[in-house]
Amino acid sequence: MPFSSETVRVLAPATVANVVCGFDVLGFALSEPNDEMHLRLTDEPGVRIINEDKFDLPTEPTRNVAGAALLAMLRAAPEVTGVEVRIHKTIRPGSGIGSSAASAAGAVVGLNHLLGNQFSKSELVEFAMYGEEVASWVRHADNIAPAIYGGVTLIRATTPAPDVVPLDAPPLFVTVVHPQIEVKTADARRILKQDVPLRDAIRQWGNVGALVAGLLKHDYALIGRALEDVIVEPVRSILIPGFEQVKSGSHAVGALGGGISGSGPSLFMLSQHEATAQAVAEVMRRTYEQLGLAHFVYQTTINTTGCRILPV
Amino acid sequence: MPFSSETVRVLAPATVANVVCGFDVLGFALSEPNDEMHLRLTDEPGVRIINEDKFDLPTEPTRNVAGAALLAMLRAAPEVTGVEVRIHKTIRPGSGIGSSAASAAGAVVGLNHLLGNQFSKSELVEFAMYGEEVASWVRHADNIAPAIYGGVTLIRATTPAPDVVPLDAPPLFVTVVHPQIEVKTADARRILKQDVPLRDAIRQWGNVGALVAGLLKHDYALIGRALEDVIVEPVRSILIPGFEQVKSGSHAVGALGGGISGSGPSLFMLSQHEATAQAVAEVMRRTYEQLGLAHFVYQTTINTTGCRILPV
Repeated sequence: MPFSSETVRVLAPATVANVVCGFDVLGFALSEPNDEMHLRLTDEPGVRIINEDKFDLPTEPTRNVAGAALLAMLRAAPEVTGVEVRIHKTIRPGSGIGSSAASAAGAVVGLNHLLGNQFSKSELVEFAMYGEEVASWVRHADNIAPAIYGGVTLIRATTPAPDVVPLDAPPLFVTVVHPQIEVKTADARRILKQDVPLRDAIRQWGNVGALVAGLLKHDYALIGRALEDVIVEPVRSILIPGFEQVKSGSHAVGALGGGISGSGPSLFMLSQHEATAQAVAEVMRRTYEQLGLAHFVYQTTINTTGCRILPV
Repeated sequence: MPFSSETVRVLAPATVANVVCGFDVLGFALSEPNDEMHLRLTDEPGVRIINEDKFDLPTEPTRNVAGAALLAMLRAAPEVTGVEVRIHKTIRPGSGIGSSAASAAGAVVGLNHLLGNQFSKSELVEFAMYGEEVASWVRHADNIAPAIYGGVTLIRATTPAPDVVPLDAPPLFVTVVHPQIEVKTADARRILKQDVPLRDAIRQWGNVGALVAGLLKHDYALIGRALEDVIVEPVRSILIPGFEQVKSGSHAVGALGGGISGSGPSLFMLSQHEATAQAVAEVMRRTYEQLGLAHFVYQTTINTTGCRILPV
């Protein structure tokens, strides 16, 4: 076998998709939490999944996010017989911070390392999108791309091939709260209107352009003004108890802005300063304590490297 | 009178609004053509318009674009009695390259100079929008902003106040053709659908974000890929004979891309190299000669300063 017989260890980050105004096109990677995966090439044909966590995810490769991504990659690398992946997830499925994307991205980055990095990041995004399809029936890339590229990414378009634009952002502190309620991505998509008023669409693409400009110009005030969503948030926020309290409370303590992470239920807020991000964490805890809802709070930063290969 | 008794001379540039994907939010200023205006303060109350060109535009201030903009500005500067403006337009009304915006922008920039530049560019945009309202019944700013700021500008939003984001673009060569047909802005707006499919809106804001990133990153290839419009161009291009020939012919000779300037009938193409822009000009001339349509072609660059105050 011409490839590495080593075992590779991968840390795959959580990600925030949509980023308020950028529905289906913007996303960024978080420094915490991360899934951990171990991959090795085997002589057993196909993909073998071993789950080492409590989430009881499917192990049949076509029904597993990492499995579907690896199967797509194996079709492009017919010289490989098989691959085994052991998965220890920390990113809770259904949390809205890219749990399935982490599995898919970590798997293809790990296998690519074992294959001598023969595939480009753009190709890895394509493979990983087959994993997202298993999770949400849609081949979207707005979590996958930041999980693989790191930082903030824009997906210009997904057809004919994903066109990923990395955006060099200034330092940002991110506070995320995951209230323990279930919002299925497929349900969250179903309640969206299929048509939107042109007037709202114009406001939205003005904000997307401004958010991209704010990030690239390192203009925090502009980032804050651009974090406005007139299309998706008004519909989806009603699914998330505490949304308005978290948003208004976070603004009150100085957050730049934020909103629903992906399709929820997690909410995220961006801050220029660490002390503000801490105050936002307090707002989040207080909100869900008052509502009597179990919750996790992550206070973190933007991961600028994406999935990382680590010593075993 | 505390203000200047001099006469100020202003060159007000043509502008390209929309810039393919950025309907109502993006625009840039052209080095050529320009309108020329002379303004002076008077003791005669109100605004006096003197047209020194062949276009026979209204001279009643409330019905004249420059007049309406100046009246809005006078309401904010009650210490001024009156202003006289002589206008020599070169930018043909109805051409789709911001003829009315040039009149409005030049007028307010000129009067601001006479008032010791007491108003910010952002405030000037607001005054000038009253002029655009006279021309097209809509207070849009996508021609006004680049005419005042120069370069490429993004209007993040127009309410509560216009939020203008200047975008530092790389050098670009611009070729514009104005075929001598009439497309009224109001008509061009009327044929647009009031609702758009969410899927198309997502594609559009992916392109807007990518175009902003391409400009700020000076990434010509990305600029080219992002010059795609799935919402407005398919509807409006049918009003413009020769559209497909100009577009495909320009791509064939190496243009980055382009489309309808504002609401047409002018078409514009962006090129990285001057020789390409010349070849595009040939494509444009050939197309309209074959169609037997009178036309003007401008081969120019992006004006990075906006309206200019010149010696009299």
